[in-house]
Amino acid sequence: MFAKTPEPPYYAVIFTSFRNENEKMEYAEMAIQMVDLAKDQEGFLGMETARNEIGITISYWKDLESIKNWKNNSEHQLAQINGRKIWYDQYFVRIAKVERQYGFENS
Amino acid sequence: MFAKTPEPPYYAVIFTSFRNENEKMEYAEMAIQMVDLAKDQEGFLGMETARNEIGITISYWKDLESIKNWKNNSEHQLAQINGRKIWYDQYFVRIAKVERQYGFENS
Repeated sequence: MFAKTPEPPYYAVIFTSFRNENEKMEYAEMAIQMVDLAKDQEGFLGMETARNEIGITISYWKDLESIKNWKNNSEHQLAQINGRKIWYDQYFVRIAKVERQYGFENS
Repeated sequence: MFAKTPEPPYYAVIFTSFRNENEKMEYAEMAIQMVDLAKDQEGFLGMETARNEIGITISYWKDLESIKNWKNNSEHQLAQINGRKIWYDQYFVRIAKVERQYGFENS
């Protein structure tokens, strides 16, 4: 489902990545753990993720402080280190302030 | 590949969607046409897309003016109408100002 985000402003962390072929099981386990862990963080608003060749994960946060705290979370730090050492060929992070939103639903 | 975006600030349009089963060929053709058309627009900076259950397409733009012009482009308007009428169960659009970015590449 869509992340149920509040009225803007709030923040989005756009994480795009290319995986290698290493440790598919371990990577999948880490990914699940990180989603569970992120959900427990102060200021976490939701997450959306899809991967074809490129992987796109967007997490939504109340403010820059929450994003900083999540980046510095010790379990997340370990995942980041393993990400760079083992799982990712490349990744890119963009931090963006959501200013406007609207949706459509077929009835 | 990653969108090759310039130094922030610039804008991201985060388009998330759920497809139905209608007109898969026509949808795929429209999607390709819209990417080609977007690339020709003033202020277009890049695009990244992936779909599993949820589809995530992020397009990057120089400013809000470029985004408005793209939204109002007549061929894109027709695609939006068909999207609501035929192809999408739901979609959600977020417009966000990218403030910071950094990347990692395995050597």
